[in-house]
Amino acid sequence: MSAPLYRRLIAEGLGTAMLLATVIGSGIMGARLANGTVGLALLANAIATGAMLVVLILIFGPLSGAHFNPIVSLAEAFRRNLQWKELGPFVIVQVAGAIAGVWTAHLMFDLSVFELSNTFRTGPSQWFSEAVASFGLLLTVFGCMANAPKATPYAMGLYITAAYWFTASTSFANPAVTIARAFSDTFAGIAPQNVAAFVAAQIAGTIAAIMLRRWLWPLSRREISSR
Amino acid sequence: MSAPLYRRLIAEGLGTAMLLATVIGSGIMGARLANGTVGLALLANAIATGAMLVVLILIFGPLSGAHFNPIVSLAEAFRRNLQWKELGPFVIVQVAGAIAGVWTAHLMFDLSVFELSNTFRTGPSQWFSEAVASFGLLLTVFGCMANAPKATPYAMGLYITAAYWFTASTSFANPAVTIARAFSDTFAGIAPQNVAAFVAAQIAGTIAAIMLRRWLWPLSRREISSR
Amino acid sequence: MSAPLYRRLIAEGLGTAMLLATVIGSGIMGARLANGTVGLALLANAIATGAMLVVLILIFGPLSGAHFNPIVSLAEAFRRNLQWKELGPFVIVQVAGAIAGVWTAHLMFDLSVFELSNTFRTGPSQWFSEAVASFGLLLTVFGCMANAPKATPYAMGLYITAAYWFTASTSFANPAVTIARAFSDTFAGIAPQNVAAFVAAQIAGTIAAIMLRRWLWPLSRREISSR
Amino acid sequence: MSAPLYRRLIAEGLGTAMLLATVIGSGIMGARLANGTVGLALLANAIATGAMLVVLILIFGPLSGAHFNPIVSLAEAFRRNLQWKELGPFVIVQVAGAIAGVWTAHLMFDLSVFELSNTFRTGPSQWFSEAVASFGLLLTVFGCMANAPKATPYAMGLYITAAYWFTASTSFANPAVTIARAFSDTFAGIAPQNVAAFVAAQIAGTIAAIMLRRWLWPLSRREISSR
Repeated sequence: MSAPLYRRLIAEGLGTAMLLATVIGSGIMGARLANGTVGLALLANAIATGAMLVVLILIFGPLSGAHFNPIVSLAEAFRRNLQWKELGPFVIVQVAGAIAGVWTAHLMFDLSVFELSNTFRTGPSQWFSEAVASFGLLLTVFGCMANAPKATPYAMGLYITAAYWFTASTSFANPAVTIARAFSDTFAGIAPQNVAAFVAAQIAGTIAAIMLRRWLWPLSRREISSR
Repeated sequence: MSAPLYRRLIAEGLGTAMLLATVIGSGIMGARLANGTVGLALLANAIATGAMLVVLILIFGPLSGAHFNPIVSLAEAFRRNLQWKELGPFVIVQVAGAIAGVWTAHLMFDLSVFELSNTFRTGPSQWFSEAVASFGLLLTVFGCMANAPKATPYAMGLYITAAYWFTASTSFANPAVTIARAFSDTFAGIAPQNVAAFVAAQIAGTIAAIMLRRWLWPLSRREISSR
Repeated sequence: MSAPLYRRLIAEGLGTAMLLATVIGSGIMGARLANGTVGLALLANAIATGAMLVVLILIFGPLSGAHFNPIVSLAEAFRRNLQWKELGPFVIVQVAGAIAGVWTAHLMFDLSVFELSNTFRTGPSQWFSEAVASFGLLLTVFGCMANAPKATPYAMGLYITAAYWFTASTSFANPAVTIARAFSDTFAGIAPQNVAAFVAAQIAGTIAAIMLRRWLWPLSRREISSR
Repeated sequence: MSAPLYRRLIAEGLGTAMLLATVIGSGIMGARLANGTVGLALLANAIATGAMLVVLILIFGPLSGAHFNPIVSLAEAFRRNLQWKELGPFVIVQVAGAIAGVWTAHLMFDLSVFELSNTFRTGPSQWFSEAVASFGLLLTVFGCMANAPKATPYAMGLYITAAYWFTASTSFANPAVTIARAFSDTFAGIAPQNVAAFVAAQIAGTIAAIMLRRWLWPLSRREISSR
């Protein structure tokens, strides 16, 4: 990454904002137009989010790595693709961008900007879902980087589209997204009191993936040279 | 672009016509077959439009750049990938092609060729949606050209599929498309009196994207050499 | 094309059979499971057909060109990518393969193998739709071959997915497919007495595309060398 | 394949587990949210499974070949891309991983881990469907390897998405998947007493594809050198 830090932070913040505008906006649109068939709303939500994620990784990947996600930044720090001192700024702009994206969606759909969600998402099966979703997301990141770096944007978009459906939580799999979705009382929201457990589960899945990676894929050149 | 101007204009006109035939045609088909579930019609509309846009950019991109959109041509003129004196002809064939595409769709679906829309799309949240949609569309164009030019067709198709859902206006994001859709009293139409504000919002989003681009992605070779 | 003719004919016949099994099979499945919402059946039909077409062109393209369609073979003969004397055998195996595919679908869904359709598809707007669909299909073939040959499988699949929706006829755009669909009294069928006009419209669209091609894309090397 | 056997077995087991978690999980989610429109549930199931399969083949393909399927491993053994003595271990981890994936899905959706399916899937048209689905799946594998190896992940995902719809059985096309789905009394389940006939039909389709392959695509270098 040769781009200066401020440009990378703009890319991370703007990208995460566009991601959240899509997650929240397509959730609102889906719920409004689905005539009560929640599955149709979720299908639109999943397709829109996956499609946008491909675009955002294509355009911002070469600038900042296109993490848009604190657990990806954390994993990249472990892999020494991100300096540890950069992790804090990355997470801050991701969370700030995510909240800005939620507010953008609210403005587009004529809702009050500031809201808190009343959608309860809690319990062991939800938490297990988030751990599994985060584990799979990071395996996708690691596997693509090791084997097919140019396919990463497509793989991430496809993974997220699938993950909306195969987990009971619809796969937040992203602490910045989770925090931001607490600020939206719409289809994709999560009650603020349920955020911490989701984030903990996401970190648990992250740790499992980091441990498995060293075993599955060979060390990267950067890791070897830094020994 | 070494193709002669008349060939590039044919490509822009024909491509925009096929795009609008798809937008209007799939909107009509979706509305007819959705049993009143508007979300299903919009899903078909979004998937068909995104899929066709990929195809059109693949086949016409090397000829004319495959703008099909006055704000893209405007941005390309700013970037000196299009001569300023060519902007007028480009916009004219885009608008004419778009209207021809609407009429083609009407003929295919046995509707009267000339219609004016009665679908009102107005208000600050609609306009803000159009500004955001246009801003995102141009960032996608700029980012792909800087980082992944071969992925441009796919990125544009995916962006538009997502944009149907994440904005309250279903993302026209294109002045030629907006004008043409005023000529269709079907699912995808817009009342003529609402067109001007949509176009103004699209231009606002365009300006924001052009300003941000210089900051995010380095100057292109052409820009540097033309200094 | 260095593969011997018999291998190319097997590829054309088998590929067209798999294409029709998908068109008819997914139409039956969609109609059975859609609870009367025809739009949902058509969405499944369009996604399944488009997806399968990508696969078939990927695997059979290098063998036979993966036409699966007499109007594509006709256009390839005009472009001297297919010898005129090979056109007859190509069309015969395409039609035979298509009918075999229909029967395969009937067997899979426990229907009587031999049926004739009672679905009437006729009238000027249907015929105009077929001409437009065939014109667009051939432009996609020509444009991809000129500009992006490796993207052809994806472009064709995306085009067909869109074409199901933007034309009033759901885009047969293929005489072999049209003839074969007369042998199925299911969702995707067409009454035998409506076949001839569909095929005539498809040929009209083909001629328009062939004429436009010489104007839009430069002559291929093969054409130049054969002068 | 230069990766040590234990790493390849982990890749096969983990990949098959993630595949089944997706098949079962998205089936449960679809059925819960579809308001009784089975077609919508199947659409979500098909899109999620196809998307995840692309991801899994991208990330595990270079490690183990990403078979996730005993009939693919069998065909690879015939083609000498897998040693015959490795076939047993491959099949064992595929079946074990598949069952683990089912249980993971049950845990995510708060169902009892151990279940047996009560969904009857039997009769000649179901068996014929499985033979056709397996035949097509292996042609896709063979054709991609011969002609477009880098497109394999996308082709497989698209094939499976289409195959959910064009066969009467929704295309299991995989003995490990079939066995594992007997352990889930949910949307994607199959009654245990129906498993053996499905597997037999899958093997019949496999044999047909293996026989056709030698005829359609030239011998691979490995086969030639091993003569």
